[in-house]
Amino acid sequence: MHAVVFGNVTAIIQRMYARRSLYHTRMKDLKDFIRVHRLPQQLKQRMLEYFQTTWSVNNGIDANELLRDFPDELRADIAMHLHKDILQLPLFETASRGCLRALSLHIKTSFCAPGEYLLRQGDALQAHYFVCSGSLEVLKDNMVLAILGKGDLIGADLPGKDQVIKTNADVKALTYCDLQYVALRGLVEVLELYPEYCSKFMADIHQDLTFNLREGSEIEVGACLSPPPVQAPAPGDAG
Amino acid sequence: MHAVVFGNVTAIIQRMYARRSLYHTRMKDLKDFIRVHRLPQQLKQRMLEYFQTTWSVNNGIDANELLRDFPDELRADIAMHLHKDILQLPLFETASRGCLRALSLHIKTSFCAPGEYLLRQGDALQAHYFVCSGSLEVLKDNMVLAILGKGDLIGADLPGKDQVIKTNADVKALTYCDLQYVALRGLVEVLELYPEYCSKFMADIHQDLTFNLREGSEIEVGACLSPPPVQAPAPGDAG
Repeated sequence: MHAVVFGNVTAIIQRMYARRSLYHTRMKDLKDFIRVHRLPQQLKQRMLEYFQTTWSVNNGIDANELLRDFPDELRADIAMHLHKDILQLPLFETASRGCLRALSLHIKTSFCAPGEYLLRQGDALQAHYFVCSGSLEVLKDNMVLAILGKGDLIGADLPGKDQVIKTNADVKALTYCDLQYVALRGLVEVLELYPEYCSKFMADIHQDLTFNLREGSEIEVGACLSPPPVQAPAPGDAG
Repeated sequence: MHAVVFGNVTAIIQRMYARRSLYHTRMKDLKDFIRVHRLPQQLKQRMLEYFQTTWSVNNGIDANELLRDFPDELRADIAMHLHKDILQLPLFETASRGCLRALSLHIKTSFCAPGEYLLRQGDALQAHYFVCSGSLEVLKDNMVLAILGKGDLIGADLPGKDQVIKTNADVKALTYCDLQYVALRGLVEVLELYPEYCSKFMADIHQDLTFNLREGSEIEVGACLSPPPVQAPAPGDAG
């Protein structure tokens, strides 16, 4: 009799501590991985910090995994709520309801720890980033070109077909930053589904970008309403 | 009160034995699977050996799963460290920092047990393989064409669009081999993002391959600086 009660209560308490114990398990995996592969101390530090911060944000719950089997309609409602900050940009004002919802499903949240690089000069640009909180600096050859903060959008006008955009500067976090980003590949997919908005987007993106990461964009600003000029054509897209 | 203590202690002890018990669970699943499907003894042996060796290498930790949510910048730093052996090949010397990091995210580690085949003659080639340790033999019609060892790169010059490369020989492990490989699909994706390096890569890959698995490549060696000749066109790519 006692044993039964005891067993049940134990089980209940274990559930109470389940999340915490999951944290410890994941942390142990991470440390074992670092040990097995003899990762240098500095890298280890960054990994552990990132893990701890992520956990403090999402409590170890993988939203994609959690919502995977939900119907698109419901997932879109959830995504619209989670990503309302970036979707409130004037850039998206003219997008139809369906277009916005399709976009919302391609938006992800992320963060950047102080001193970490979000983007590196010369890398192929993969996404548009929206700063929800914190501040970052845009660096070119170690010269600060801009300081970005809450509400700023970083990215580039869309690449033409068979074209890749190389970021023209480093973007480095000065403080802890919450970010929302939409991957270029996903963005292009949606714009193909909503051509009426596509042209509007192409025209507006220039003004709405706080900083344009397109290589040589500085000298393009005058032509911001014309479609992006073709440069450095290359096979494939930027996705 | 007792229950609380008991619950905590139980949780702690469970964590202590979590990894070991995970091993036993996975092993049991595997054995049940083998039993249910009545797999032949020899196949069973290979499966169990592979499972045990994998576990001894990665401790049952799925690196991809573990690092999935890390930001690209951090994941690239980790990947660059894990795969520095293959990335130190002269072939990659001229690749830009961003290109190397993008590549590193497509490199995977693997191993091959003695007597196991890494590649079979006539199969579509899926990746370039780099030998970190151990030795393999290249066989054609049961004739040994080459013995491969530490630092050797096996693969083929890249296929043209809508083209598949069929491996022209068997590659069989003589000893336990640690390998790093980059999937052709991932490689092509990156080269499309970095066209300036793509041409260099196409030109250099011939000399840097210890053994070229492209069908009929033996008679091509003279033309190693020209782009790969189109042969046996087939739908789809080698990814």
